[in-house]
Amino acid sequence: MALSECKELLLIESKGVLTITLNRPEVRNAMNLAMVDELMQTFNAIADKPHIRIVVIKGADGNFCSGGDIKDMVNAMKKISDDDQDAIYDLNRIFGRMISLIDKAPQVVITLLEGAVLGGGFGLACISDIAIADSKCQFGLPETGLGLPPAQIAPFVVKRIGLTQARRLVLTGARFNGKEAKKLGVVHFTTKSEAKMQQLLQTQIKQIKHCAPDANRTTKELIHDVGEIEQESLLDKAARTFSKAVQSEEGREGTSAFIEKRPAYWVD
Amino acid sequence: MALSECKELLLIESKGVLTITLNRPEVRNAMNLAMVDELMQTFNAIADKPHIRIVVIKGADGNFCSGGDIKDMVNAMKKISDDDQDAIYDLNRIFGRMISLIDKAPQVVITLLEGAVLGGGFGLACISDIAIADSKCQFGLPETGLGLPPAQIAPFVVKRIGLTQARRLVLTGARFNGKEAKKLGVVHFTTKSEAKMQQLLQTQIKQIKHCAPDANRTTKELIHDVGEIEQESLLDKAARTFSKAVQSEEGREGTSAFIEKRPAYWVD
Amino acid sequence: MALSECKELLLIESKGVLTITLNRPEVRNAMNLAMVDELMQTFNAIADKPHIRIVVIKGADGNFCSGGDIKDMVNAMKKISDDDQDAIYDLNRIFGRMISLIDKAPQVVITLLEGAVLGGGFGLACISDIAIADSKCQFGLPETGLGLPPAQIAPFVVKRIGLTQARRLVLTGARFNGKEAKKLGVVHFTTKSEAKMQQLLQTQIKQIKHCAPDANRTTKELIHDVGEIEQESLLDKAARTFSKAVQSEEGREGTSAFIEKRPAYWVD
Repeated sequence: MALSECKELLLIESKGVLTITLNRPEVRNAMNLAMVDELMQTFNAIADKPHIRIVVIKGADGNFCSGGDIKDMVNAMKKISDDDQDAIYDLNRIFGRMISLIDKAPQVVITLLEGAVLGGGFGLACISDIAIADSKCQFGLPETGLGLPPAQIAPFVVKRIGLTQARRLVLTGARFNGKEAKKLGVVHFTTKSEAKMQQLLQTQIKQIKHCAPDANRTTKELIHDVGEIEQESLLDKAARTFSKAVQSEEGREGTSAFIEKRPAYWVD
Repeated sequence: MALSECKELLLIESKGVLTITLNRPEVRNAMNLAMVDELMQTFNAIADKPHIRIVVIKGADGNFCSGGDIKDMVNAMKKISDDDQDAIYDLNRIFGRMISLIDKAPQVVITLLEGAVLGGGFGLACISDIAIADSKCQFGLPETGLGLPPAQIAPFVVKRIGLTQARRLVLTGARFNGKEAKKLGVVHFTTKSEAKMQQLLQTQIKQIKHCAPDANRTTKELIHDVGEIEQESLLDKAARTFSKAVQSEEGREGTSAFIEKRPAYWVD
Repeated sequence: MALSECKELLLIESKGVLTITLNRPEVRNAMNLAMVDELMQTFNAIADKPHIRIVVIKGADGNFCSGGDIKDMVNAMKKISDDDQDAIYDLNRIFGRMISLIDKAPQVVITLLEGAVLGGGFGLACISDIAIADSKCQFGLPETGLGLPPAQIAPFVVKRIGLTQARRLVLTGARFNGKEAKKLGVVHFTTKSEAKMQQLLQTQIKQIKHCAPDANRTTKELIHDVGEIEQESLLDKAARTFSKAVQSEEGREGTSAFIEKRPAYWVD
């Protein structure tokens, strides 16, 4: 898919950074199926494009994302006959597939969070490598108030902030702002204005570009394996990855640059 | 068991909330075997009573719980012949069974923590969905000072606050107050007076009652599965749960109420 | 091995406390293979010496440890033919083996962190039971800037502070000071002077010595099993450990001392 064919997303690529804007401002960028589908196609399309090192996800017009589009879901459901459990299952499951895909994207994923960060939008925030939130933005999981479990979101919230904090949030449907989100560990930074947010974003991008591209990719893979692979086996695997890295062009350049006290070729 | 038959606990049920008072104030509500047994019977008795949505656990007369009753334990041990390892094993193991049972109770469990929150009392605090502590109350694991490992408690402390903080606490037997407990992530809130604690409790109860009863039950089950079931399988299971919820009375009511902008039937 | 034979470490044993000083101040105590080897030999030598209850690890001359010694590594690599992947693998893997060994040492391990706490030094800090950092000291994972994954370190960082914070740190190579390290959960305490650090160290040692030696050893083993062994089986195992402890000399003394309101024999 050409990146330009998206309808629900705006995509801009510049200097190794792909910026994705969730673009349904009339519904505070609620995710319909088309948007979920475009997000997955976009991340699949860039998976093997190492020149794209960073993906920034933001929302149009002052909101990040208000969650799944309930009307879109109800409409989709009307086409499903009552006993077709599988179709409803599929409809729900795709949200989790999208979040898992972005969670493990080889790029460094940064979310810029403003306004509503609810339900599925909260889920997206929970898997970003760097989350920067406006201190006033509003987080929450409204699902149980609608009689539904936050099925594809809650597991990512637990992974993000641990069971202790997650159990309170999901069982009370609590709303909280960016400052509280930082205390809870949902986000890494809060900022007080659009300008400060952009400034902080540029600092992060600069730092990331100082790190070697392949080393970052393999490191992201490695940290996702923690808890999935038994620790000693994980360290064995990591040592094999290290061995390959040392002999790669990047590894030779990086250690030489260090000893010669000069910047490596990948630094801007 | 009729709830009124308890001797070591006071039970009051009102408007969907069961309040359990640990009631041995002469020993700062230390847990003897009778109390552990009554706690398990109570939680087993309400497991299939969905009208009880919330359980509040507190202690009588200004202390939550000072831990296992050492004298009771020593007495129980006197009846055990020296080589009867199994009896001592059983005696210890039942504490962990009680904590596991309450951890996974279908209700939302809230602890109100004042005064002593030690040993087994600390363990109970560690599995509550919402923990509210008086800022001056005293937490700690005194077991190793008595020559014993906090065998049925330490695993719940690690799950609550992570290995990093738990390893220091258990290896130093450190005492700390409510404010520190909040920083460590043991509790969610601290309050400075009995009145403020009651006020905060009422806010939490109101928020919980805004969430749909079945949705909360299935969500609590779901978050307990994180780390137990491999993530993609967990998301598959969650999508099946979601599919059932959408077609349930609760799910239909919740989404209709949302679209019609009215409160759902379960909201007070 | 006699402890006095070390060349890269200074070892001092006094009153149950072994103090290890990483002693290559000319390279900010960077770890060469000899140092890693000596650390492993030291911890293996004391594993079955229960009279050593505490190990304090610090660095000479105002730095803790600046990481792996790159020049040492490059030299070691020159002796390896280009296709001998196994030798590079071994070279890297030994760092992880050393960190795993110290992580699970039966003693309580305390790190005193000043100046540089980078790469492998950061890894060591991440497995200490109590980490005390000078508020100005500098933490970071510079590896990806050198084109290499922090292969034997990153998994310990994730275990220490969780995936959420670890992913940002490893993918940006961020540097941060002691105060930030405390917020992130890398360390337990920060101090503002050498004198305050020593004072806090003495308080911790005193608290640890109040706990029973064997009870602490079995408790440390127990908390390391969380997440490795399924929870109910872990609690079963813990109850068997408890049963043995109750009948041990330590357990009998500890409970008697408690009831008789006197200090146990192991308290100084």
